[in-house]
Amino acid sequence: MELIDGNQIAATLIAELKADIATIAGRKPCLALVRVGEDPASVSYVRKKEKTAEEIGVTSRIILPPIDISQEELFKLIDSLNADAGVDGILVQSPLPKHIDEVAVFRRVAPEKDVDGFNTINLGKVAQEDDTGFVACTPAGIMELLARSGVDLKGKHVVVLGRSLIVGKPIALLALQKRAGANGTVTICHSGTANLPALTRQADVLVAAIGRPEFVTADMVKPGAVVIDVGINRVPDATKKTGYRLTGDVHFPSVAPLTSKITPVPGGVGPMTVAMLMKNTVKAYRLRR
Amino acid sequence: MELIDGNQIAATLIAELKADIATIAGRKPCLALVRVGEDPASVSYVRKKEKTAEEIGVTSRIILPPIDISQEELFKLIDSLNADAGVDGILVQSPLPKHIDEVAVFRRVAPEKDVDGFNTINLGKVAQEDDTGFVACTPAGIMELLARSGVDLKGKHVVVLGRSLIVGKPIALLALQKRAGANGTVTICHSGTANLPALTRQADVLVAAIGRPEFVTADMVKPGAVVIDVGINRVPDATKKTGYRLTGDVHFPSVAPLTSKITPVPGGVGPMTVAMLMKNTVKAYRLRR
Repeated sequence: MELIDGNQIAATLIAELKADIATIAGRKPCLALVRVGEDPASVSYVRKKEKTAEEIGVTSRIILPPIDISQEELFKLIDSLNADAGVDGILVQSPLPKHIDEVAVFRRVAPEKDVDGFNTINLGKVAQEDDTGFVACTPAGIMELLARSGVDLKGKHVVVLGRSLIVGKPIALLALQKRAGANGTVTICHSGTANLPALTRQADVLVAAIGRPEFVTADMVKPGAVVIDVGINRVPDATKKTGYRLTGDVHFPSVAPLTSKITPVPGGVGPMTVAMLMKNTVKAYRLRR
Repeated sequence: MELIDGNQIAATLIAELKADIATIAGRKPCLALVRVGEDPASVSYVRKKEKTAEEIGVTSRIILPPIDISQEELFKLIDSLNADAGVDGILVQSPLPKHIDEVAVFRRVAPEKDVDGFNTINLGKVAQEDDTGFVACTPAGIMELLARSGVDLKGKHVVVLGRSLIVGKPIALLALQKRAGANGTVTICHSGTANLPALTRQADVLVAAIGRPEFVTADMVKPGAVVIDVGINRVPDATKKTGYRLTGDVHFPSVAPLTSKITPVPGGVGPMTVAMLMKNTVKAYRLRR
């Protein structure tokens, strides 16, 4: 069994992007980060994105509307960023307050600046295998992890556990694409799937994105499979100062020894998302030039 | 074994649409049919669409640009139809001449008039389960056939053979949706799939859309499965006046006896596409009002 080290792969990607950006003369790529309110997790995520941007030479512009901003005002703010020639990428940090329609906000971001890949057009482009779009950071990060770990999906059976719009569906569409590294046969399972273990046991590559702590157990995994654990769940743990520990959707202790490669949680898929956000921002910059 | 009679189901749907349109006071739904050149199959398809429109009370507007129309001129024509308040749906008949970028033309059609469902936004909306979009007529027709034949995909394993943008991917996304009749577990196979028969034999519902005549044989089908044959292939046949016969992607004589339900070719999925085009046109009309 080999650990797929997301921290290390993300660091390599970040270093490559930094070297790439260093070659850019004149205006550098610019990412607008919009954070509504003071949700502690959001504060931490946005700070991480800001720091990574600074590290690699992406200009970031932090916009902090108050928690009671109206949807119309937020639309106006996004429209102004869409129209701003100095902004290449726009990220609106989720979650938004409940009085705001999050999906409508994500759709308001211009497709060519939608570095989060949540706009309908960019999802459609994943299905159409159109490289001018942006792939959402988590599924894009999984494909990058696989590629940089020497896992070619060609001729492989990829089983995706979870059908979310942010992970399950786009990773299924990416794995299916007719391109080097992809060309997989893809099964998408979910909470309503009958006889789930019989299906997951067929996976050469199993992507767990169901959002249930330690849901995937040893009996659900074929020996030698590659397992990508997308889950980030908090489970109570009295031995920890915080009172909880982080765990994935895979029961790591029993599953890991069976696999040929597996991502840990934390330190697997997680670190890739910020790196992919930066990669998308640089792509947006180049496409707009 | 029960035949799924596409002609009869399409006729029922057409009758329902006719009754629905009869209740509309004032301007009726209007479908613009654009046919470039005189390709005999296209002439026949467009005539069929025109006749069905007339039958149910949809106004059709036939536009016949010459075969040597430039892409720019065709764009201008589509732009004028997009802007025309009296036009609800626009269909550009495929195939287009080789000097024209077909994908670019399909994308030029305004999403709210894209009754063929080929626009990137409408494909994205299928993935997003957003009902304000339009589903391409063939996959939409398959879902309608299943629903009207009493086949509920919930808890079923749906295996789709073929990953095309027009059939394979959208039918997979539709079968997966969280809605009544859907909620299937979905596998997408294709020409690069290893050990294909072992996968197709798991199908409770098998959708064959691989474009190879009689590709699916008895050893690839589980007894009792529902089989939907999307293929329309011409194979040489000296006993026919035309010199060919039409066949699906399924070897009907050996497979049909195994199944619980199966669509014939012709007379299965085919007749549904024009009916779904009319359904989409009425939907476009209502959404625009």
